[in-house]
Amino acid sequence: MIFSSDNWSGAHPAIGESLMAHAAGYASGYGTSDLDRKVEQKFAEIFERNVAVFFVGTGTAANSLALATANRAGGVAFCHREAHVIADECGAPGFFSHGARLKPVDGPRGKMVAARLDAEIRRFPLDNVQGGQPTVVSLTQATESGTVYSLAEIDAIAAVSKAHSLPLHMDGARFANALISLDTTPAEMTWKRGVDLVSFGGTKNGCWCAEALVLFDLSSAQEMHFMRKRAGQLFSKSRFVSAQFDAYFAGDLWLDLARHANAMAARLAEGITASKTSRLAWQADTNEVFAILKKDVAAKLRQRGAIFYDWPVPQDLVGSFAPDEGLHRLVTSFATRADDVDLFVSAC
Amino acid sequence: MIFSSDNWSGAHPAIGESLMAHAAGYASGYGTSDLDRKVEQKFAEIFERNVAVFFVGTGTAANSLALATANRAGGVAFCHREAHVIADECGAPGFFSHGARLKPVDGPRGKMVAARLDAEIRRFPLDNVQGGQPTVVSLTQATESGTVYSLAEIDAIAAVSKAHSLPLHMDGARFANALISLDTTPAEMTWKRGVDLVSFGGTKNGCWCAEALVLFDLSSAQEMHFMRKRAGQLFSKSRFVSAQFDAYFAGDLWLDLARHANAMAARLAEGITASKTSRLAWQADTNEVFAILKKDVAAKLRQRGAIFYDWPVPQDLVGSFAPDEGLHRLVTSFATRADDVDLFVSAC
Amino acid sequence: MIFSSDNWSGAHPAIGESLMAHAAGYASGYGTSDLDRKVEQKFAEIFERNVAVFFVGTGTAANSLALATANRAGGVAFCHREAHVIADECGAPGFFSHGARLKPVDGPRGKMVAARLDAEIRRFPLDNVQGGQPTVVSLTQATESGTVYSLAEIDAIAAVSKAHSLPLHMDGARFANALISLDTTPAEMTWKRGVDLVSFGGTKNGCWCAEALVLFDLSSAQEMHFMRKRAGQLFSKSRFVSAQFDAYFAGDLWLDLARHANAMAARLAEGITASKTSRLAWQADTNEVFAILKKDVAAKLRQRGAIFYDWPVPQDLVGSFAPDEGLHRLVTSFATRADDVDLFVSAC
Amino acid sequence: MIFSSDNWSGAHPAIGESLMAHAAGYASGYGTSDLDRKVEQKFAEIFERNVAVFFVGTGTAANSLALATANRAGGVAFCHREAHVIADECGAPGFFSHGARLKPVDGPRGKMVAARLDAEIRRFPLDNVQGGQPTVVSLTQATESGTVYSLAEIDAIAAVSKAHSLPLHMDGARFANALISLDTTPAEMTWKRGVDLVSFGGTKNGCWCAEALVLFDLSSAQEMHFMRKRAGQLFSKSRFVSAQFDAYFAGDLWLDLARHANAMAARLAEGITASKTSRLAWQADTNEVFAILKKDVAAKLRQRGAIFYDWPVPQDLVGSFAPDEGLHRLVTSFATRADDVDLFVSAC
Repeated sequence: MIFSSDNWSGAHPAIGESLMAHAAGYASGYGTSDLDRKVEQKFAEIFERNVAVFFVGTGTAANSLALATANRAGGVAFCHREAHVIADECGAPGFFSHGARLKPVDGPRGKMVAARLDAEIRRFPLDNVQGGQPTVVSLTQATESGTVYSLAEIDAIAAVSKAHSLPLHMDGARFANALISLDTTPAEMTWKRGVDLVSFGGTKNGCWCAEALVLFDLSSAQEMHFMRKRAGQLFSKSRFVSAQFDAYFAGDLWLDLARHANAMAARLAEGITASKTSRLAWQADTNEVFAILKKDVAAKLRQRGAIFYDWPVPQDLVGSFAPDEGLHRLVTSFATRADDVDLFVSAC
Repeated sequence: MIFSSDNWSGAHPAIGESLMAHAAGYASGYGTSDLDRKVEQKFAEIFERNVAVFFVGTGTAANSLALATANRAGGVAFCHREAHVIADECGAPGFFSHGARLKPVDGPRGKMVAARLDAEIRRFPLDNVQGGQPTVVSLTQATESGTVYSLAEIDAIAAVSKAHSLPLHMDGARFANALISLDTTPAEMTWKRGVDLVSFGGTKNGCWCAEALVLFDLSSAQEMHFMRKRAGQLFSKSRFVSAQFDAYFAGDLWLDLARHANAMAARLAEGITASKTSRLAWQADTNEVFAILKKDVAAKLRQRGAIFYDWPVPQDLVGSFAPDEGLHRLVTSFATRADDVDLFVSAC
Repeated sequence: MIFSSDNWSGAHPAIGESLMAHAAGYASGYGTSDLDRKVEQKFAEIFERNVAVFFVGTGTAANSLALATANRAGGVAFCHREAHVIADECGAPGFFSHGARLKPVDGPRGKMVAARLDAEIRRFPLDNVQGGQPTVVSLTQATESGTVYSLAEIDAIAAVSKAHSLPLHMDGARFANALISLDTTPAEMTWKRGVDLVSFGGTKNGCWCAEALVLFDLSSAQEMHFMRKRAGQLFSKSRFVSAQFDAYFAGDLWLDLARHANAMAARLAEGITASKTSRLAWQADTNEVFAILKKDVAAKLRQRGAIFYDWPVPQDLVGSFAPDEGLHRLVTSFATRADDVDLFVSAC
Repeated sequence: MIFSSDNWSGAHPAIGESLMAHAAGYASGYGTSDLDRKVEQKFAEIFERNVAVFFVGTGTAANSLALATANRAGGVAFCHREAHVIADECGAPGFFSHGARLKPVDGPRGKMVAARLDAEIRRFPLDNVQGGQPTVVSLTQATESGTVYSLAEIDAIAAVSKAHSLPLHMDGARFANALISLDTTPAEMTWKRGVDLVSFGGTKNGCWCAEALVLFDLSSAQEMHFMRKRAGQLFSKSRFVSAQFDAYFAGDLWLDLARHANAMAARLAEGITASKTSRLAWQADTNEVFAILKKDVAAKLRQRGAIFYDWPVPQDLVGSFAPDEGLHRLVTSFATRADDVDLFVSAC
């Protein structure tokens, strides 16, 4: 009953087999091999357009390079108050951007409200050098709250970004989970909405280590080659990433894995909703379920081996829980078994 | 006949099998799993003392974090003129160190001469704020010229470093190859000589992606946790690195692989020396052979499928080659076959 | 009737005369002249202890170097939500600190509440590498709201800082104004309370350009020499700063100038309080008066030549003004004349 | 007999008087006052075209911002091996540029040889991400050796820069001295030759602290506003710089001051050439004389109160001095008196 994080799971067998299959023989290094090219072409197919693809080692690196490529002096990036880039990356975006700042934007359940984003950006007029200058907007899809921006919500965020001539970045650490949730295509969820660059995560969804920064504006690709190398993110045996993505995309494995993870979360959510003592804090759109458990129930579950995190109560929900209740995050993954879900639910 | 670089090879089967073996089940992320602990303990055994081990994605990252941890304002690091850190990392050490500079030190065949190192350091007296301040010395073992510092040579470099109170870093991208060449132990080649931190490379020697920064001074480990995370180098599924190192160290596989690579280089060197038209530019200590080939011989070899790089002639050898001769680098690896070596030699 | 900012005034005649007096002859550069030494000694007298003094060109530089000297990887500094360092320095502290972040702490009238500071620091436990690590606390004295921390309030902030082993920085852009307001000594207002380093501003209080970073911990002085030079803040003709400070301190001119500025603010505040239509938004402790003016009154004043800024309404006062009222900041300086104050008040 | 450096002198009386004259009254801050505008307009007249002018506190800041504005990831700037930016600024250009590197270019007497510059740039082909990318060329006018690039030599350097699409920066810490030496105009010495941005120094030539970064490409001015502020280089009482420049330019004072300094250097050079024991190391083009003095002569001069620096012997002159000879730098300034020159010469 491991619901702590999707990165506690290992890798799907197909990923490992692909690594085994490509281990023999020789291939040119530093992202120049035939397999690298093939996988980059696959990204172009998936996104239905030319893209520039940069493999990196972590989502933190993808996000930080994305924000850095848009940076200017005194730059200010905008993201949700609870976004991974602002809360959980040890200041990496600022480090990669030589001191750029991230300004938190409010909104319920991990999603920026477009009007609030607009108001925050307006606090940095370009003629006020003291304040600094807006540089980029970053949205997380799926969000840290397990929710997803609808296509219309992405449209609204993109409209604000474009009105201020700011590029729009999508942190897609759980890109596939969001895609399944919206039942849409990568193109529809990104550049057709106005997204300019994407951190495309494969690691949480069944890979060992497969992250990519995808740029739709090819004119910034040349610079990104140098930015990535300078950041120590250009792998010599780049095949070890492309072999993972090769298997990940083959036969739409990636969508199947995300579909499974989301389905397990839905099963978990249903079970909790139907339980006597527990309830959902809010609707689970993807593979993260936020549940309100009685303290004794949480203790009992943990005694039985369940692993899951306590979660800070969002500001707008403070006071809405009973004293004997706690908020918890439950994450499913490609590897989650229905048995474990049912076992968990049975104790709620 | 691939002699372009040891990173053109893939991974040893045992590495892939270990990844497969650890793919199932769950483990805590971000370097906190039992396997991570086990491998760190293995490092301690290998180095015969307590060490702090930080897995990272690339040698560039390991080197840059190493130099950054020693950095101060206006800092100047010292390395050989042809060292990887100064010539081939796109300025990453400077980026990680907020503008620290690398000063080239001369010496034949990739090795700093201790007296020259001392003279270069003395150019930065601490009372001259304009010049900046010395911060760290970095030596490459094995060097970019395929040579190794003898234990006495490391002693001499360490003595200069200590005389100026500077920590000593070893770029060990080819650590195992150097170890085999010197027939010594990791402890003897590093901290017993005065080395303070090591970039420990596994990738070139049969792993997919396994690099570690090893600190002998445990007091700097706490800060390095934040430095690594801030640099986007903390892997969520850290097991994918530790599983590689686990297999790498098991039964001394790593030493066997390096021994093989070095033996193949020796075989190549012998063949070239015995050939009618070709000769060695200098002695090959490890798995890199620098050969002087007639231009028509090089062309013939390439026609037959040999892949290898032209190499810039070191300053002190300029003018010592005939007009129809060229300098080339030939790199062997764990995967090099004797057949290919013999085929190459037969055409020299 | 210029009440826009104290930096709209020029320089006190004594400052210019001192520059004239030191213009002839020669003196060694880069902060090594006899006059530099004399002024540094004067700082020691003023603070009643040994100090390390670093002249710089701007308060932004002093603040940024102060925060940078305390920085570590993934560092987080803490300051009031409206502090100059977080709101008005174009991200300079982050730039000097390679990406360090500033976390806003709440509190009424520009002053951090100690308990809230403690709560914010606790959000960054050292075992959570994702969050980053606390590095320094910065308080502004006098604050951006024209208020001052009492000695007891500084004690409370210092106690929290020390409890978390964090150095405490004081942004003293209006140090003299605060000192006069508290009727205390520099030593009592700083290191005797637990302040570790001070941005000591002279520019707003009658100098042309005289700012200094004062360190009470002499062990960090050596590094600061390099940090300042690296930041392009070491003046070759350092005398041009020391000559200003020399006159500034002579005969306690600096205290007289601040006393005058504060007195003019008090006169302004009294006048506004006594007026029929206008009132104070809050008590003026120093040389900044925050007044609530009827819109037609503000327009009339501006028509008559008064210059002053509209000011954003603090969150806790939103809704407490009438629709026809506006919040304005009125700043006095060493150069403000009572006539102008009275003229202003007569129109309120 | 002070010949140590031109920054050992103070300020010309006209500079101080201008500061006195502008000390009273009020003016808007942060570079927005009428006087700031007037002086910027004066720069445009001097350069015979529209320019963007940014006052900063030091030449180090002007140079570092200039190189930073041209920077890209993994960037490499090119300058002479002995240039101030590479040798005497504590790594500031790298700090401002987040790790950009400076590559030394050789050439006798402080001047880059165009062909060598071209060769150095070619070592960084854009398809080699490991090496990094060329970003900017910086030449010093006058050089650290007291020489000046002729207009034809600037043409040659500019041609190489343009061939590689690199902007060309001129470090003009001694701009006026070079101008007088070449008997040309600011326009002819800069943008008409292909120079794109200039560090325009006034401090060494009679100001207290007056440095400006001049951009001929107005499209980069908007970004520079933020870069300057972020670097803590935007003065609140910007008038203190513009008042200096106002007097500096009035009646061509700046040219008269440089003419005097150069004339004093010529007088010194003539005297040394005519002396019995001493000689010039090379021709003095501006206000720096490099003299070879017998050791006992140097000692005697110092005993009589002369202050001047020993100077490192350039590599190409090593071995060309007698054992009892030493190389020394003698710098004159606007304040140097003929009496002192003659006194010095009389002892040579």
